[in-house]
Amino acid sequence: MHTETNEAKSGKIRVVLVGGSGYTGFEVIRCLARHGQAELVGIFGPEGELGPMESFYPHLAKLCPLEQVLYEPDKVASLGADLAMLCVPHKVAMSYVPALLEAGLRVIDWSADYRLRDPAEYEKWYCPHTDPEHLAEAAYGLPEYFAERIRTARLVANPGCYPTCTTLALAPVIAAGLIEPTGIVCNAISGVSGAGRTAAQKFHFPERNENFEPYGVGTHRHMPEMEQALSEITGRTVELLFQPHLCPMDRGMLCSLYARPAGKVTGEQLTECLQAAYADKPFVRVRTDVLPATKYTSHTNFCDVAARVAKGRVVLFSALDNLLKGASGQAVQNMNVMFGFDETAGLY
Amino acid sequence: MHTETNEAKSGKIRVVLVGGSGYTGFEVIRCLARHGQAELVGIFGPEGELGPMESFYPHLAKLCPLEQVLYEPDKVASLGADLAMLCVPHKVAMSYVPALLEAGLRVIDWSADYRLRDPAEYEKWYCPHTDPEHLAEAAYGLPEYFAERIRTARLVANPGCYPTCTTLALAPVIAAGLIEPTGIVCNAISGVSGAGRTAAQKFHFPERNENFEPYGVGTHRHMPEMEQALSEITGRTVELLFQPHLCPMDRGMLCSLYARPAGKVTGEQLTECLQAAYADKPFVRVRTDVLPATKYTSHTNFCDVAARVAKGRVVLFSALDNLLKGASGQAVQNMNVMFGFDETAGLY
Amino acid sequence: MHTETNEAKSGKIRVVLVGGSGYTGFEVIRCLARHGQAELVGIFGPEGELGPMESFYPHLAKLCPLEQVLYEPDKVASLGADLAMLCVPHKVAMSYVPALLEAGLRVIDWSADYRLRDPAEYEKWYCPHTDPEHLAEAAYGLPEYFAERIRTARLVANPGCYPTCTTLALAPVIAAGLIEPTGIVCNAISGVSGAGRTAAQKFHFPERNENFEPYGVGTHRHMPEMEQALSEITGRTVELLFQPHLCPMDRGMLCSLYARPAGKVTGEQLTECLQAAYADKPFVRVRTDVLPATKYTSHTNFCDVAARVAKGRVVLFSALDNLLKGASGQAVQNMNVMFGFDETAGLY
Amino acid sequence: MHTETNEAKSGKIRVVLVGGSGYTGFEVIRCLARHGQAELVGIFGPEGELGPMESFYPHLAKLCPLEQVLYEPDKVASLGADLAMLCVPHKVAMSYVPALLEAGLRVIDWSADYRLRDPAEYEKWYCPHTDPEHLAEAAYGLPEYFAERIRTARLVANPGCYPTCTTLALAPVIAAGLIEPTGIVCNAISGVSGAGRTAAQKFHFPERNENFEPYGVGTHRHMPEMEQALSEITGRTVELLFQPHLCPMDRGMLCSLYARPAGKVTGEQLTECLQAAYADKPFVRVRTDVLPATKYTSHTNFCDVAARVAKGRVVLFSALDNLLKGASGQAVQNMNVMFGFDETAGLY
Repeated sequence: MHTETNEAKSGKIRVVLVGGSGYTGFEVIRCLARHGQAELVGIFGPEGELGPMESFYPHLAKLCPLEQVLYEPDKVASLGADLAMLCVPHKVAMSYVPALLEAGLRVIDWSADYRLRDPAEYEKWYCPHTDPEHLAEAAYGLPEYFAERIRTARLVANPGCYPTCTTLALAPVIAAGLIEPTGIVCNAISGVSGAGRTAAQKFHFPERNENFEPYGVGTHRHMPEMEQALSEITGRTVELLFQPHLCPMDRGMLCSLYARPAGKVTGEQLTECLQAAYADKPFVRVRTDVLPATKYTSHTNFCDVAARVAKGRVVLFSALDNLLKGASGQAVQNMNVMFGFDETAGLY
Repeated sequence: MHTETNEAKSGKIRVVLVGGSGYTGFEVIRCLARHGQAELVGIFGPEGELGPMESFYPHLAKLCPLEQVLYEPDKVASLGADLAMLCVPHKVAMSYVPALLEAGLRVIDWSADYRLRDPAEYEKWYCPHTDPEHLAEAAYGLPEYFAERIRTARLVANPGCYPTCTTLALAPVIAAGLIEPTGIVCNAISGVSGAGRTAAQKFHFPERNENFEPYGVGTHRHMPEMEQALSEITGRTVELLFQPHLCPMDRGMLCSLYARPAGKVTGEQLTECLQAAYADKPFVRVRTDVLPATKYTSHTNFCDVAARVAKGRVVLFSALDNLLKGASGQAVQNMNVMFGFDETAGLY
Repeated sequence: MHTETNEAKSGKIRVVLVGGSGYTGFEVIRCLARHGQAELVGIFGPEGELGPMESFYPHLAKLCPLEQVLYEPDKVASLGADLAMLCVPHKVAMSYVPALLEAGLRVIDWSADYRLRDPAEYEKWYCPHTDPEHLAEAAYGLPEYFAERIRTARLVANPGCYPTCTTLALAPVIAAGLIEPTGIVCNAISGVSGAGRTAAQKFHFPERNENFEPYGVGTHRHMPEMEQALSEITGRTVELLFQPHLCPMDRGMLCSLYARPAGKVTGEQLTECLQAAYADKPFVRVRTDVLPATKYTSHTNFCDVAARVAKGRVVLFSALDNLLKGASGQAVQNMNVMFGFDETAGLY
Repeated sequence: MHTETNEAKSGKIRVVLVGGSGYTGFEVIRCLARHGQAELVGIFGPEGELGPMESFYPHLAKLCPLEQVLYEPDKVASLGADLAMLCVPHKVAMSYVPALLEAGLRVIDWSADYRLRDPAEYEKWYCPHTDPEHLAEAAYGLPEYFAERIRTARLVANPGCYPTCTTLALAPVIAAGLIEPTGIVCNAISGVSGAGRTAAQKFHFPERNENFEPYGVGTHRHMPEMEQALSEITGRTVELLFQPHLCPMDRGMLCSLYARPAGKVTGEQLTECLQAAYADKPFVRVRTDVLPATKYTSHTNFCDVAARVAKGRVVLFSALDNLLKGASGQAVQNMNVMFGFDETAGLY
């Protein structure tokens, strides 16, 4: 089905973006502007959020001449696009996907709608699932682990930022049997852009600046996604407690992970395990002397991980840019895998 | 009229605050908690913003046990208060003031309603003036210059943050004839708390953080207030161009002022002029080696000023905390003057 | 011995500060400026850091007229002070304390020198202990738990910021047997002022801004202090893993604590346990609806705590201002207890 | 001389970087990693700053595998490079340039050494000039105005950040005779990265955060550079007062410029003048509704400008990223012009 892309004819694949006015839309536009093999041919949005992209993001003047126009499936189909990128909220995404697939586009979806395998689990955390059919075929877009499925997938569910950060650190050491797969604590922090672009008093500058705050104790929707991804990758039943915090910075995410070693384990063993897992992965870096810090990954698609042993426990750290490797950068990485481009195209 | 205050009987004056849920309300509550001679006896607000103060500001738990209750003039009057502090928007303030004065309270008003002497000027920048009668008697609450009127005033118009910052730097050197009173440029910056507590995308953390931005070119309502205050103090007709900017920090304000020297003037002359003006003023500090910087005044009621000559022009700087010397600290300073307390009480 | 203080004669105790040029020195000066019963009569420092206080902190002009003069025990003794406050590094503190006590002063020491009961434990983390004699008599300055000893102590070891924050959250629930006292994880974050005032590339603004970073895995010197304080208060052997992080803000500290419940425990039980412990403590607030956040405690001496149960584990949070309740505010609180003042004097 | 570049043979020009460990070095490495026609083949530095690039910038792991090795002219020459990029301090730059030119390399110099035409003027602000010969041939690297000279230049003096920002706003309106060329005030602010990477107390995070501060009154070395660039471009003698300030953010620069109109001038005229000047320039954007703000240009090579009339004066604003359009991005733009690449290559 994907053999006759426009790429064959014009040298570039044609991409449409649905939902350009949020932070993730902005980031993907910047990545595509740097990408030699993909061309953004249309941007679609809902009533009330239409107009030139630079009206939403003055940053985009002279960089992206497109307008966000009203989303209509037929209009999207008429552009002859190869790929639709969906930066829309959950529930909206699954109302768009069937028609897009039907029209022959491949789809990368930023929302949670196709991430959880089990519709019942999805419905517990979100809302009724209206497209279980395509849920079954969706590939989970963590290319370090699912590249093979992503390569041929029609529909890729782009992972959440916290699950990406957590999974990249934990998966190798759980798979190698170095830590117990249950009773893990994930203490995570995120920059405020992770909360999206809609204003609210909680995110008002004077309320957030010089402020560090926990939220969502035991209730964050990314927790089941982490457990699912880790269990699928490692073949073990993984159970963890995830606790997020808001940190007074724009972007960046860091997870501090606490686990029980499975038997006698050294920091060196853990580090070697991570290094073996990621030696040939372009966007995961294993830190040794220097610990992961958000700034080393800001405005990049890298995820940095490290492992230590302290007081008989295993401590892992992972850091990434929540808008890039945690969202739009990863989506472009998925696109690169799907269309056979260099995995790093548009991402340095 | 103000001779028989409750102070005489109980040792403390009784203060009511109208409008406790914004940033200036919060700051005045903290100042009063440190003040040995004034007691906050009631907090009033509008429908929809009622409840324990700690529900608006978790900061106030175990510090301020009061509830914000619905504003009704009779309820205020029944508390036997000596002073009403009004942290409410312009237009609302002048709808409350007549009844409060009638009930025998003295009033300090944070809004712009009683700042501009000329109702026509007020109406040009704001809205129709509904209380011109009391406008005439209001004292302009800049205690460094109007302490005598403030001491006996029933109604004090607490100045704007930008006018306070600008006036304290310019008044002495204009009055002394060291600079030309016209053609002055005031380039000002403010922390984001100056915009109030209401959320809007413009003040959303990821939009403001790492962002510096001008606004209100030629249209800021503080411009006529500055010109009026400076003209009154100096006896000259002062004309200036005021240009504000938003700076990515919570609080703090800095004005960089550019003026033409009146004849040959040195930096030393300017500095001596400022020093003479403020030697006995507890909250204005004249800087010499170190230039004013917002942080030196943050969380204090100080205003720092300095003067230099560069390339044939006079450059002055002034800095203060927009919520304290620029608002609530100055109001407490006015209260101290009105009731004969030490001018610094509650303000260190 | 402490019965004839200068307070008896002049109405105010006389305080000397040793080490005024760091952030904690600055904060204690501000607290004392607000304090009606204590007077700062001298400030002492080392060679190379002498001069008017406003030369170190332009903030202090017109607020603190004192100069920092060379520390000499005789000079201190000659001031007839009641109390010496030591904001000096560890090792220096214990070289000063014997002479100060000898001269009849009471001492509050900010450093770690008198915090760990066991000299051997101290020497493992710091350096050889040169004053074991007074180590034995030092009171640990956490007034919520050791007020009785502090009241009559000659020497008070002011706790570390992290131990204060951690202990106030954990002590009641461990003492009540609600959580297991071992295997606790303390994930902590601090504002950058916690690292002191000495410049280093690690703390250079562009390196720290927009950056969140873990440090000191398994090696932070506050870990044994926490375990000691908690064990002493609760009578249980407490064991925890402490992991600090640097957060891009000036001040503030937040600990996220993860523990195993001892049997079946609900969030309500934990909250009630905390409320019972702190109902009559002026500076500890138990949060219920709103979680602790650093900003609610910034520029105050409060510590906010809260408890929840999530996925079968107990999660506690505690927040404070690292320079106040975590250092200088707590020292003033200790002074208030030592001299029989209202515990909150100078601290609102 | 430049006709036989390596580009002809390998498809990419060969670039060496001298001085990779500062912020501008880091930025140019990132730009080159995105550039399809230039290859970084060597990085050189001084004794004491040698080693893998990721040891200076953990950000560069898996992105730049090079080591910074000791700078020796012969070693540089042996790499067969087409271009040397010098991110070294003034004085050092002019000690390196003659040998590099001699070896047949073209050179872009970030320092001030070749910016001021007149050696006497240079020596007044910096130090004795040791290479007046090449000073005469250097092109001033502001491609919007000097592209023709840059295209064939052996040596390009990359402009300072403040001069770039100021000149792009003022040049068209002075050249068009819309404002008086003298008596201009340039009130400028910069993010802290503009001060470089060397730690100092002034740039210590807790000193700079929440702090806004003026510096260098009448003494900043960029002032003569602005006057020279503007005078050269416009053919008028331009005189301005430049006043910089430090703003609590990583990166970004904004100039607020105040000038006297030359006769009757409207905002529309000014805007049209700017639009005409920059219609075909890829990196200068003329703002109309929205004013320039630093964030719209952060992490980009754009400079945004706008003009207004207020109270009889002309007010212009310009904003850019001090490390990109103000330094390394502009250098890459110059490289693109020098080697005939698309002007935007590597810069989106």
